[in-house]
Amino acid sequence: MHSSHQARIGIIDLGSNTTRLVVLAYTPHQMYKLEDQVRERVRLSEGMGEANLLRAQPMQHTIEVLRLFRTFCEANNVPTVIATATSAVRDAVNQSSFLARVAREVGLMLRVLSGEEEAYYGYLGAINSLSFSDGILADLGGGSLELTAVRQRHLTRSVSEPLGVVRLTERFLTSDPVKPNEIAALLAHVDATLDRLDWTRSGGTLVGIGGTIRALSKVDRKRRNYPLDLAHGYTLSREALDSITEELKRLPIAQRTRIPGLADDRADVTLAGALVFQRLMERGGYKEVLICGQGLREGLFYPYLLPGIDPPLLPDVRQFSVENLARFHGYARAHSEHVRHLAWQLFDGTANLHGLGAWERELLGHAALLHDIGIEIDFYEHHLHSAYLILNSGLPGFTHRELVLIAQLARYHRKGTPSLDGYAGLLLPEDEPRLRQLASILRLAEYLERGKRQAVRGLHLHLARPWIQIEALGTGDISVELWDARRNADLFANTFNLKVELVAGAWDGQE
Amino acid sequence: MHSSHQARIGIIDLGSNTTRLVVLAYTPHQMYKLEDQVRERVRLSEGMGEANLLRAQPMQHTIEVLRLFRTFCEANNVPTVIATATSAVRDAVNQSSFLARVAREVGLMLRVLSGEEEAYYGYLGAINSLSFSDGILADLGGGSLELTAVRQRHLTRSVSEPLGVVRLTERFLTSDPVKPNEIAALLAHVDATLDRLDWTRSGGTLVGIGGTIRALSKVDRKRRNYPLDLAHGYTLSREALDSITEELKRLPIAQRTRIPGLADDRADVTLAGALVFQRLMERGGYKEVLICGQGLREGLFYPYLLPGIDPPLLPDVRQFSVENLARFHGYARAHSEHVRHLAWQLFDGTANLHGLGAWERELLGHAALLHDIGIEIDFYEHHLHSAYLILNSGLPGFTHRELVLIAQLARYHRKGTPSLDGYAGLLLPEDEPRLRQLASILRLAEYLERGKRQAVRGLHLHLARPWIQIEALGTGDISVELWDARRNADLFANTFNLKVELVAGAWDGQE
Repeated sequence: MHSSHQARIGIIDLGSNTTRLVVLAYTPHQMYKLEDQVRERVRLSEGMGEANLLRAQPMQHTIEVLRLFRTFCEANNVPTVIATATSAVRDAVNQSSFLARVAREVGLMLRVLSGEEEAYYGYLGAINSLSFSDGILADLGGGSLELTAVRQRHLTRSVSEPLGVVRLTERFLTSDPVKPNEIAALLAHVDATLDRLDWTRSGGTLVGIGGTIRALSKVDRKRRNYPLDLAHGYTLSREALDSITEELKRLPIAQRTRIPGLADDRADVTLAGALVFQRLMERGGYKEVLICGQGLREGLFYPYLLPGIDPPLLPDVRQFSVENLARFHGYARAHSEHVRHLAWQLFDGTANLHGLGAWERELLGHAALLHDIGIEIDFYEHHLHSAYLILNSGLPGFTHRELVLIAQLARYHRKGTPSLDGYAGLLLPEDEPRLRQLASILRLAEYLERGKRQAVRGLHLHLARPWIQIEALGTGDISVELWDARRNADLFANTFNLKVELVAGAWDGQE
Repeated sequence: MHSSHQARIGIIDLGSNTTRLVVLAYTPHQMYKLEDQVRERVRLSEGMGEANLLRAQPMQHTIEVLRLFRTFCEANNVPTVIATATSAVRDAVNQSSFLARVAREVGLMLRVLSGEEEAYYGYLGAINSLSFSDGILADLGGGSLELTAVRQRHLTRSVSEPLGVVRLTERFLTSDPVKPNEIAALLAHVDATLDRLDWTRSGGTLVGIGGTIRALSKVDRKRRNYPLDLAHGYTLSREALDSITEELKRLPIAQRTRIPGLADDRADVTLAGALVFQRLMERGGYKEVLICGQGLREGLFYPYLLPGIDPPLLPDVRQFSVENLARFHGYARAHSEHVRHLAWQLFDGTANLHGLGAWERELLGHAALLHDIGIEIDFYEHHLHSAYLILNSGLPGFTHRELVLIAQLARYHRKGTPSLDGYAGLLLPEDEPRLRQLASILRLAEYLERGKRQAVRGLHLHLARPWIQIEALGTGDISVELWDARRNADLFANTFNLKVELVAGAWDGQE
């Protein structure tokens, strides 16, 4: 869906390892969508060394790439372009010369972010795309590591340290394969920094940001044959990180490129990043790290998405994700919200039967809003398409387990026997009855709103084992709804082991 | 994408076995899309027997269902509703009483189609969704079989015979499991009719329409573990039909429902349909039947989609399918058409290298138009989403092999090594190099249009083994295009075993 009220913005992020341009389309407070991305590994920080001097070749390469990005934005009618630079430029003794060249030769005003600003924008990316409210963010780039403490969704403290993976690799890991004493020196250096930062052990969730931790999580997903190809929201365990680290230590760089999931241009620097995360987890007592796919670039964008809100935090990440996706695929709002209304009535009215709580009720509501979005792809099998769209949107703010549960509810909202399908390794065994109960409720609600006209205003449930009478309360004709709900009540009846009587009742204007 | 210029129409098709309502949204001459479908098996013809009398219970049930359909259309603001009846009502001695009841009790004017009209609309459905131009259509319903001869896309002859599956089953196959003499009697009856119709052996393609042949094809797809769950365009072989027929003969009805792919409400009548198709194939010397997923309902719709064209035939089914899909997903027209333009230049300029012909050139062009449609789902991995959308649209007018080739070209237009993936059983071994060559061309064309601004107007190719120089002809800045094309020329270079030199050349306004 392409709205005419959309604005477009380009964000250039000149890192130590990679330079990237993203183009986003958005409607403030409503919706956003990545439209394009161009990426080039320039390794701007390469060879800076102790002198902290940007070198001629990487500078030249960077300027060429920035010129291409600028041309790209002009060609694509992107009126607003934000270009930022981080650690490499920030720390360079020849920063002003480089900035002057970029201004003159490219025509871009590069904004050099301070370490605190870099941490802040990384925090905005994470806090607006994940559901945690307390913890530590570790944003590990090529040049620097930003650590940020978050309490009740607010940034309370942050620091930027020169512990980026390119920098550490160049300084410490110069042999191939690496030698034990090189690793020991790197760890001692990291520890010396972290010793000064005891607030980074303060519990909550450890969130990992940046290309290195994403790459590590991808290697783990490949190893596990994980059913989702999705970094954002993935949980990397300490054991998995340790195991991958050992493999990286053992292999020369040329062989690391054969590790499934590890991109060639990350083969050399990923080990340093793995070691940094090992130390962070060890010292903070973290058993896992939650991967965040958003970061600095998205953080720079949120002030544009949420003008007038400072700091620009989405009030409810999960609700925004669901509505963003639903709107994008042109969902039938009145119908979907009414299915949710009826599904919640059924859920509440059968609470003693299913024993499920607020968490499942929330997921049911999200699935109700999204159940029909697949119609945009094709009416036939649209339940499958809805699930595909949900899974591939990633739904920021949800765990992978929640994401799959919502997708499977949409998958089974019309027909079929709900099951874990290919997600048994990601869901828990008890999710199967949970899914069955919720899907049976969603399906009955869907058919009670089959006419898509909100004719069944509410429900009265009368439980008298072994049967249940459901009064569909309407003010007018509800024949379509009763007919199709009766035809499709089997799953509900079987799941709750009840005979279902669906009858018309009179709506009295209340519930 | 929901255009405000869309009209909506409801089509009710009251068959002998099933009553169905479809709701279509469309823009005349441009685009159409199924929005909803409701179906109920009423078996209106049940018990008509030799007396040809519609019976009380099926009439009552049908009237209730029609009332629900009418209510559904009203509730969903469908201003135009066409309701038609076929064989059961056409042949009923109490037709006028039934029509009067429908008018009075439902408020619908049922249009009773003659056998010739039924054949004609089935033909419109088939001819506008398949690419054949000569052959025989066999539209087998519950009450009747329509046979139609097609020459150069035009209907030359048609007939309607009372050989529908419900009718034949009720008259001949009354035992369970069926007895050999019952089958012999059915076959003799069918042959007696076909003996009068020697024009139905006249070569070309045998096209099968209707729920029975779709059901048979589904059983075959399940048996073969066929990688596409798509009836339209599927080719059912004589051997497969024979094998399924033998199984249906052997099993009592209760056990037939366990045949994977066979819906419960078709278990009893499918054998009669299989026998009819066996006779048609045997007598006409057909080795296979091409399944058509469209039929009467879609045929009734085409006069609305194509006003002013009589008969309402799409001039080019394949081109319409591709553009319908591309438009629906809001494709970037100028960009896609320019990628096609460049891809065709590369294809033509390397004709001596690949030796491919007009067929591959056409597929390449379609893939170029559709390569980016997956961006609507998500930018990341949008090549995968494009393939998903193509496969799930079914692209009427293409064979399954062509459909998969187009999808795989979109799949590999950005990255990855083109392969048959899960479609080895559907594609041919020689499709792997074909796919590789075409994908390498499409990818190079895509990156030569990376700025999405048609900056590279044309190409000059200079082949001088072991290298090829490609001049990108522009009038302005083509830096983005040269840069990204150079980064992504590997597949082309490796496929054609050439070193690739990409250089800027001056556009002189011609090609």
